[in-house]
Amino acid sequence: MDEAYIQSRQNEQVKNLVKLRERKHRDRQERFIVEGLRELGHAIGSGFEVQTIYFCPELFPSEAHGAFIDECRREQSIQLVRMSTDAFQKACYREGPDGLLGLASQQANSLDDLNLPEAPLLLVLEGIEKPGNLGALLRSADGAGADAVVLVDCVLDLYNPNAIRSSQGLVFALPIVSVSRETFLPWLRQKQIQLVATTPDTENLHWNVDYRKGTALFLGSESDGLTTHCLEAADCRIRIPMAGRADSLNVSVAAAVCLYEARRQRDS
Amino acid sequence: MDEAYIQSRQNEQVKNLVKLRERKHRDRQERFIVEGLRELGHAIGSGFEVQTIYFCPELFPSEAHGAFIDECRREQSIQLVRMSTDAFQKACYREGPDGLLGLASQQANSLDDLNLPEAPLLLVLEGIEKPGNLGALLRSADGAGADAVVLVDCVLDLYNPNAIRSSQGLVFALPIVSVSRETFLPWLRQKQIQLVATTPDTENLHWNVDYRKGTALFLGSESDGLTTHCLEAADCRIRIPMAGRADSLNVSVAAAVCLYEARRQRDS
Repeated sequence: MDEAYIQSRQNEQVKNLVKLRERKHRDRQERFIVEGLRELGHAIGSGFEVQTIYFCPELFPSEAHGAFIDECRREQSIQLVRMSTDAFQKACYREGPDGLLGLASQQANSLDDLNLPEAPLLLVLEGIEKPGNLGALLRSADGAGADAVVLVDCVLDLYNPNAIRSSQGLVFALPIVSVSRETFLPWLRQKQIQLVATTPDTENLHWNVDYRKGTALFLGSESDGLTTHCLEAADCRIRIPMAGRADSLNVSVAAAVCLYEARRQRDS
Repeated sequence: MDEAYIQSRQNEQVKNLVKLRERKHRDRQERFIVEGLRELGHAIGSGFEVQTIYFCPELFPSEAHGAFIDECRREQSIQLVRMSTDAFQKACYREGPDGLLGLASQQANSLDDLNLPEAPLLLVLEGIEKPGNLGALLRSADGAGADAVVLVDCVLDLYNPNAIRSSQGLVFALPIVSVSRETFLPWLRQKQIQLVATTPDTENLHWNVDYRKGTALFLGSESDGLTTHCLEAADCRIRIPMAGRADSLNVSVAAAVCLYEARRQRDS
């Protein structure tokens, strides 16, 4: 495959990469950007179709980066485009780029696409607002072995560059579905998955739940928590005990505490 | 008490507030800066001596801020200095300041100052490097009810402005001691507190420990983990099971997962 070379910051492809930082362009093109060697590895390893990789050898911090491009050259399945440092600096979003930037196709997962085990463990996020928190939540869910993450009525998309970065690429590792509440709650009922809602307004502590059943653990937005709709639909409400002065944990910490309690019950 | 007014960015007090962003000046003066209403409330409520509060009413985002200054005026125990917006903007460290900035005295806690219950639960951090992580760790420790936090051979000081910010002021809520390993390990032995070390290199999972005993939970630096010294001194080594692709959790998440397992064993 011929390798193109982009010299100028004014190149149309560079301009398009900048556009893709915005959700509307990502949605319209059904594509998104993956920056960094580790993140590209996760995306490819998880079956995302990477159409093009833009690279700038002058910025490679390690030999692994050059070896990755050599491997892509041999496999010939991904289009490679070399960029000048100047053009790459404009195209990339991160500070301290490593000279690798991929253009990938979005995957539209629906609930029916999920390949779940019996008695699955789902992390459900309603209305999460901060991309950095979403990334950290995905890292917690991956570690604790959630089977999937469901975003309910979420303005964030998974392909947000800050979510990808803060998840350290794990946004690609877990099955993630974005749905409306109206679709999701009946689906849970039909699958006989219990709805466990986190809220400060209960005396029931998070370890007093039988997580060995199929469980959807709901966490709400950083500012407002879960909506009354979800709280009322819940089979049980739980809170994490707060011993000190603060009234809540960071949302990714709260998710990890509950998910690892589920893991403990299931594994020990 | 007379209230001074500082108009100029060149004022010596403004320059000193800027200096105190650096540890060497904090250590030399044995003072530090507390920015923000919530943080000042935590510091004063936890018994820190706040010498001076600099305020800029033009920046107050809520009536609570003015009410706080009125209360200080009535109590007359803290010196109040009003600043011009220009001077305050120079003195403050945060983006989006709320017009309140306190100058407080450091408290030198030693191990002997700790007022611990029987069978205490301690979070011990060896060589933590990132102020943001330290703040998040303190928030986790506060939530899970650790009795104290011990910083072992830590280049960070508690009074780092980013640690204060990311802890949401909880840096003041918990007893925190900074010690050397040589001092701390014999102290633990003498107090008969078990040393539980987190490391990826063990098959023992974090929930297979009896945390009802007096416990010091050791976590190492973000990049290198615990030193061999601490690992070898440990009564037991544990790891948090990682189900997915990532090989570790964020250090504040890991601390919360273990501390809440301790909480569960102790409370349920």
